[in-house]
Amino acid sequence: MSRLLEHLAELASIGERPDGGVCRLAFTDLDLAGRSMVAGQLQNAGLEIRVDAIGNLFGILRGSTSLPAVMVGSHTDTVGTGGRFDGALGVVAAVECVTKMQESGRIPERTIVVASFVNEEGVRFMPDMMGSLYHSHQITLRDAMAALDSAGTSIGQELDRQVGFAGTDTLDDLEIGFFLELHIEQGPILESENRQIGVVAGVQGLSWTEVEVLGSSNHAGTTPMDRRRDAGLVSGDLMSALRQLPAEIENLRLTIGSVTYHPNLVNVIANRVTFTVDMRHPDPDRLLTAEARMTEILNYPTVCDVSHKRLARTQPCHFSDTVISAVQSASDELGYSSIKMISGAGHDAQILQSIYQSGMIFIPSRGGISHSAEEFSTPEQVEAGTRVLFGALQRLAGA
Amino acid sequence: MSRLLEHLAELASIGERPDGGVCRLAFTDLDLAGRSMVAGQLQNAGLEIRVDAIGNLFGILRGSTSLPAVMVGSHTDTVGTGGRFDGALGVVAAVECVTKMQESGRIPERTIVVASFVNEEGVRFMPDMMGSLYHSHQITLRDAMAALDSAGTSIGQELDRQVGFAGTDTLDDLEIGFFLELHIEQGPILESENRQIGVVAGVQGLSWTEVEVLGSSNHAGTTPMDRRRDAGLVSGDLMSALRQLPAEIENLRLTIGSVTYHPNLVNVIANRVTFTVDMRHPDPDRLLTAEARMTEILNYPTVCDVSHKRLARTQPCHFSDTVISAVQSASDELGYSSIKMISGAGHDAQILQSIYQSGMIFIPSRGGISHSAEEFSTPEQVEAGTRVLFGALQRLAGA
Repeated sequence: MSRLLEHLAELASIGERPDGGVCRLAFTDLDLAGRSMVAGQLQNAGLEIRVDAIGNLFGILRGSTSLPAVMVGSHTDTVGTGGRFDGALGVVAAVECVTKMQESGRIPERTIVVASFVNEEGVRFMPDMMGSLYHSHQITLRDAMAALDSAGTSIGQELDRQVGFAGTDTLDDLEIGFFLELHIEQGPILESENRQIGVVAGVQGLSWTEVEVLGSSNHAGTTPMDRRRDAGLVSGDLMSALRQLPAEIENLRLTIGSVTYHPNLVNVIANRVTFTVDMRHPDPDRLLTAEARMTEILNYPTVCDVSHKRLARTQPCHFSDTVISAVQSASDELGYSSIKMISGAGHDAQILQSIYQSGMIFIPSRGGISHSAEEFSTPEQVEAGTRVLFGALQRLAGA
Repeated sequence: MSRLLEHLAELASIGERPDGGVCRLAFTDLDLAGRSMVAGQLQNAGLEIRVDAIGNLFGILRGSTSLPAVMVGSHTDTVGTGGRFDGALGVVAAVECVTKMQESGRIPERTIVVASFVNEEGVRFMPDMMGSLYHSHQITLRDAMAALDSAGTSIGQELDRQVGFAGTDTLDDLEIGFFLELHIEQGPILESENRQIGVVAGVQGLSWTEVEVLGSSNHAGTTPMDRRRDAGLVSGDLMSALRQLPAEIENLRLTIGSVTYHPNLVNVIANRVTFTVDMRHPDPDRLLTAEARMTEILNYPTVCDVSHKRLARTQPCHFSDTVISAVQSASDELGYSSIKMISGAGHDAQILQSIYQSGMIFIPSRGGISHSAEEFSTPEQVEAGTRVLFGALQRLAGA
C-alpha cells in the first residue's frame, strides 16, 4: 500500500499550497502536470493510453473476453482551495488496482478502463462534471470548448496551447458495461457512525434557485414602520419560511448560503435583497415537492416584488444494483464495517450512470471536511477503500 | 420670497450633480465655496461675520438690549448624493429673516445670531453634527481636528489648506438663550397628513448595534441538517425575533439595513454573518427597553457564537416648550395647518438643546425623500416655513 500513498503524495506535490492544500484548477498547466503524472503511472502499469478530444484520459487493460468492459476512476482537478484526496484518491487507487492485477499475472475476463475525467469541479469553467458529461454525450464538444473562465479564456484556447492535453480518441471501439468510483465521503456520516466503508446507493438530486426581492430605499429614522417596503424584512420572512421546509420534508437538505443587501447601509431601508436556495434530496418526487413548496412560499403576497430563477438542477440518481452488490460483498468479505448511503455531493459516477451501470465506494473524511487543506483520510482508510475497490473490480471484471 | 429661492438656487449650483442633486461634502473646496457664498449674503445683510476654530460660521445682528441672544440656522454640507434643501434651506431662510428685519428698520430686543454649522452630515468625517457638538463643548477641537476621511486626510489638514475656513472666535462674549432651526421633514408624515408645518417637539433617540454570528462552513450537500452550525440560519432567527420588537414596543422604529454573509456561496454553509440594527424611539425609557430586549434576544442560546457591539447612540431630545410655543403660535397666526411631531432624523438643534432652549420647524418633503436628487419641497412650502421661522424669531427676539 506504500506505493499508493507515494503516488498520492506525488500528485499532491503538484499544485501544493503553503497551507498543505492543493490547487489544480481544470485546464491549467498544473492540471496538465497532474494528468501527465497519472498517464506515466498508467504506462508503467503496461496500459494502453488514450485521450479524447476534451482531454479525458483513459488507460486500457485488455481482458480475455469480449464482454463489456469495466471502467474505474475519478478526476484529478481540484477547487481553488482543494485537498489531497478529493478525486485524486479515486484515480490513484484505480491505477493501484490494475497494477496489482498486472503483477498477479491473471488476466481479467473483462477489459478494464482506468478513467481520469477532466474538470469535475467546474470551478474555473462551468458546468462541473464536464468530462463525464462529454463522455456520456450530455454536452457537445463545441459547447464545452466555448466555456470561458473569468478572464475570458476558453477551454479551446487552453487545449490548443497545451500540446498532448487533448486527443482524438472516442473509445467507440470499446463496449463498456460498468463504472466504479472510489471517493472520500466529504461529509460526516461514516466518521460519526464509525463505519469504514460507505456503499453508495445513489446521489441526491440538487436544485439551486436565486431569489430577488425588490422594495424601496428610505430613511431608517423618518419612515414609519407601516409605510415601508423593506426588502430586508420581506426576504427575512421568506427565508424563515423556506428554512422550515426540512422539518416538513424528511431528508431534505436546504441551505441559504448567499445573501446580498443593497445599498447595505445601517440607516437605509434595503431596496434590493438577493439570496440563493440550495436544496438536495435523494428522492425525485420529494425534490419536486420541495420545489413546489418553495415556489408557493415565494408567491406569498408581500409589499415587495419577489422573483426567482433556477440556477442549476440535477436529478437524483440511483446506482446499479449489480455494482452496489459487488461493493457490498467485497467490503463484507474483507470484514469492513459498512453502511449503505446516499452521496450528498455530485460525482462523475452519477453522470455515467446514464450510459453505464455505475456505483461508488466512500471512505470517511475527517470532520466531514473537504475542499480544504484540512481534508484528510488516514492511510488505513485509504487502504480499506482501495481494497474494496479491488474486490469489487474483481467481481465485476471476473478477475 | 423670490430672493430666498434665488439664494437657494445659487447655493445648489455649487456642487451640483448631473442628476440635479448636490454634493458638498464637509471640508471640501465645494463646501468652502458654499460657506463663502453664505458669508457674502450675511455681509450683504449688514451682519458682523465670525468664524470659530472648527469653521462654524456666524452672523451677528445686534439687538437693542443685553437679553440673551437668539441663534437661528442649520448647515450647508450635504451627503454624497444630497439634495438642494437638506440644511441649505435652514441657513438661507435664516439669512432671509434677518435681511427682512434689517429692511424693516426695526431693531429686535435680543441679538440674533445666524449660524451655519460645519459637518452636520458626518459622511466624510465622523461624528455627524460635529460643528454643533464642538460649539456645545461635547467634542474637543483636538478630537475633531484629528478625524480622518477614508483617504487618511484629517480635518486639521483641510483647514490648514483652506485660508479663511477656520477662525479664532469663540462667541464667548455673547450670551445666547435660544436656538431655532427650519428643516425639511425628510419623512412622509406632513405630506400624508396634509399639513403645511411640523411643530417639532423633539428628536427620537438612536441606537446602532452591529451583530456578529460565527458558525462553521461546510458542504451544503453532504452536511446533515442536525449537524450544522449555520451562521445564516442562526442570524435569520435572530433577525426575525428582533423585527418583532416594533410590534411589542409602540413607536419603535427598527431597521436591519446591512447584512453580510461569508463566504457567501450558494453551496457552502455560512460561517460568519454580520448585521446591523438601527433602533429609534422618542422616549428614553422605551429606547432602553428596546435595547434590553435586543440584548435578551442576542443572548438566546444558539449553535453559533453571537456577539454584538454598539456603533452609535444618541439620547432622545425634548425641545424647549418656549420655542415650541413660539413656533406653534407663529404658524397659527399665519393660518397654516400644522401638526406637533417628533423628528425621525438627527439635527444640530438636538445637540444645541444641551446649552440653549431649542426648537425646530419642518416643512413637507415630497414622497418623504431626502439625501437624493429627488429631494423636493414646493416654493409655497419653502415660503410657509420661512414665514413661520420669521414669526417665531420675532416672538423669541422681541422684534
